[in-house]
Amino acid sequence: MTPLEYLKENESKSLDQLKDLLRIPSVSAQSKHKDDMITCANWVSDYLKNLGIKPEIMETGGHPVVFGEYHASDDVPTVLIYGHYDVQPTDPLDLWKTGPFDPIEENGYILARGATDDKGQFFAHLKGIESYLKTVGKAPINVKFLIEGEEEVHSENLPPFIEKHKEKLKADIVLISDGGQFGIDMPAINYGLRGIAAAEIKVTGPDRDLHSGSFGGSVANPINVLAQMIAKLQDEDGKIAIDGFYKDVYTATDWEKEQFTKLPFDAEEYRKSTGSIKLFGEKGYSPLEHTWVRPTLDCNGITGGYQGEGAKTIIPSWASAKITMRLVPDMTPDDILDKLEAYLKKICPDTVTLEIDKMGGANPVQVPTDGPWLDAAAKAIKTGFGKEPFFTKEGGSIPIVESFKIILGLDTLLVGFGQHDDNAHSPNERFLINDFHRGCRTSAALLEELSKVKA
Amino acid sequence: MTPLEYLKENESKSLDQLKDLLRIPSVSAQSKHKDDMITCANWVSDYLKNLGIKPEIMETGGHPVVFGEYHASDDVPTVLIYGHYDVQPTDPLDLWKTGPFDPIEENGYILARGATDDKGQFFAHLKGIESYLKTVGKAPINVKFLIEGEEEVHSENLPPFIEKHKEKLKADIVLISDGGQFGIDMPAINYGLRGIAAAEIKVTGPDRDLHSGSFGGSVANPINVLAQMIAKLQDEDGKIAIDGFYKDVYTATDWEKEQFTKLPFDAEEYRKSTGSIKLFGEKGYSPLEHTWVRPTLDCNGITGGYQGEGAKTIIPSWASAKITMRLVPDMTPDDILDKLEAYLKKICPDTVTLEIDKMGGANPVQVPTDGPWLDAAAKAIKTGFGKEPFFTKEGGSIPIVESFKIILGLDTLLVGFGQHDDNAHSPNERFLINDFHRGCRTSAALLEELSKVKA
Repeated sequence: MTPLEYLKENESKSLDQLKDLLRIPSVSAQSKHKDDMITCANWVSDYLKNLGIKPEIMETGGHPVVFGEYHASDDVPTVLIYGHYDVQPTDPLDLWKTGPFDPIEENGYILARGATDDKGQFFAHLKGIESYLKTVGKAPINVKFLIEGEEEVHSENLPPFIEKHKEKLKADIVLISDGGQFGIDMPAINYGLRGIAAAEIKVTGPDRDLHSGSFGGSVANPINVLAQMIAKLQDEDGKIAIDGFYKDVYTATDWEKEQFTKLPFDAEEYRKSTGSIKLFGEKGYSPLEHTWVRPTLDCNGITGGYQGEGAKTIIPSWASAKITMRLVPDMTPDDILDKLEAYLKKICPDTVTLEIDKMGGANPVQVPTDGPWLDAAAKAIKTGFGKEPFFTKEGGSIPIVESFKIILGLDTLLVGFGQHDDNAHSPNERFLINDFHRGCRTSAALLEELSKVKA
Repeated sequence: MTPLEYLKENESKSLDQLKDLLRIPSVSAQSKHKDDMITCANWVSDYLKNLGIKPEIMETGGHPVVFGEYHASDDVPTVLIYGHYDVQPTDPLDLWKTGPFDPIEENGYILARGATDDKGQFFAHLKGIESYLKTVGKAPINVKFLIEGEEEVHSENLPPFIEKHKEKLKADIVLISDGGQFGIDMPAINYGLRGIAAAEIKVTGPDRDLHSGSFGGSVANPINVLAQMIAKLQDEDGKIAIDGFYKDVYTATDWEKEQFTKLPFDAEEYRKSTGSIKLFGEKGYSPLEHTWVRPTLDCNGITGGYQGEGAKTIIPSWASAKITMRLVPDMTPDDILDKLEAYLKKICPDTVTLEIDKMGGANPVQVPTDGPWLDAAAKAIKTGFGKEPFFTKEGGSIPIVESFKIILGLDTLLVGFGQHDDNAHSPNERFLINDFHRGCRTSAALLEELSKVKA
């Protein structure tokens, strides 16, 4: 029996096992579930042990990490598979069709908290290696599992954990399945994430709120000044005016542009999904380019003066804004924040004082698109899904991917088996049963394909 | 004995009487002082009665008004003297050098809550008419007193009261002493107030907060858009860009400009008093002109998105700002708000929706500077203070002045006997004893001078 035949034959059993895993209420945010977290870590650990992989439950300072290592040979690459066994809280409970931890099947879906995020997805990778160990007797590649318990509470303990266990976690490539395909029957490989740089700026005028009647017209109003400064950061077409902002911005390759055109993207559907009356964006680029390969500047918050009901006739002492910029290769947060600072100082009038709090950020991430890892992943998806994958990017950052890159020097393959409407973080979280099984098969195929890459 | 000699001779007694008035804790904002409000109204009413003026304590829906009418003759004008017997709360008590209602004398000042605002000032006008009644036996002019008890709680009941008692309050001119001179030994007549127009604007983009990573660059950010719109309302020199904004703006007369140059105005001292690092203002005008004869546009508050600690990577659904514009003759709030609305609609991009809440305002007020009332007031001040008055304006609105104009059709003479550093509304409120006595004499002289005006 081949590994893929094994998976096919055991589909019903695999689903039952996933249901067992989904029954454990491993909500990392809630202390009442502390014991359930341990139960869940043990469940994963026991599963690895039963496969013949020696597991370790490792302290992190928070909920533990389940680590497992399978060594095939010194001559093949090592893949580090990341996942998380913790889940989101379940509120509001009354909107669920079933108990969040009483998985049911409905219309081809399995419904339960954690079904797609991330139990169903990381468990597919346990099934992948199982299919080799139970048929061939060995896997074609070295595999390390890092299944954490704090992804839904921001993985604060994970970067120091990775730093501390650098040697133990050594690998050639990271594999994460914790996201979505491009759509139903549209498996995808995400090969890039934008970075981010964050700052808070504060403009101060008078040393206290002044009466806008007595003083209005003779002193600078910090809100008006801040608005003028924000307006100068960007033209009305979304082009950012900070000196040197675009200097290190890479140009999407012809290969990338080709991938964009292959995607069945419906701008009107997309607009509707944003709830905006009209899309916006830098001239000369499509919405996918706006969010995937172009940098941005967005105010995330602004505050100043009186915000209660009615009017209060003051010139406020200060106004402030929170700003984040999304970065694309080869921009870096430090450089961009320095440029923002220099520009703001240049345009700030001398009637106010300016404070800038540079809050750091994360580098953009891009897996080499002409490298063997992407090719291998694409072949595996073809095997697992029976379809060519789409190549996609993501406009946001995934901090853990940045940590793997910075601490371990590793690129990450993002191969999500879920869908965007799987209700992750919402009531009635679900996972297409077919996506689960295709994920298991893709995982098995990935072990094979990745093993062939010359690391 | 002349009225002025009478006042001179009775200075010590007058001050003792003022102290009696200041001992009544007539704090209109605090219900525990409700009885004190009645005690205070009765004190004023009794004082009028003892002068031979029939008083009335009149219901308003809130604290009562004390009304008193002295009829001299059908052939002389009638002056309506407005004042208020209520005072501000006294917190923080520990900063007072004396009990707020235990008046003491210190360095030429009398210290107590209400000393300058407004008991000491309106009481000077009771002394003014007293000086006539106790010497000549009659006053040269018809006088109506309207001493209210809710000025410190926004006089909400007063406009309907004036409307209801229109006939009773009929007069030729209103006289108010509830403010300051231009400085020590610089008595002043305020002949104009700016008006105001208020609006709140809201810009909405997506129908909910969006992830700034996933969507950033492809949807309009309401904060950025609002900032751009605010920036377009005004250039960096403070010139307002709203179409037609300056159409009805009057030009200060040569007489006014001459008054400005007579004022001992120190721009650096003024800057320090604002706590700004540098003054600001429309090119070609001085700070006094900026605040007295030029219109403004100030954001009083702005809000949108995340305002807590740290960063939150959202494109907020909406952002809003509160705007007030100060108006000068002959602008009107309704017209200016219509112009603001039209301009905002013109500059608003089609990627967001715009809501404008026009909140109304108040007309600017100006007493005819070439009329007999100002001349009469100037002569009276010369008599009372031994100095020529300065002619000043005020950048803020005094709603009650607007009510007298709109409901009764009357101009108001604003002759303040206080100083800007009298600590009105603050601990250790005070009133220069000399200003009190000069105020009493000015009041007596005003009765004489105003009686000569042909109404």
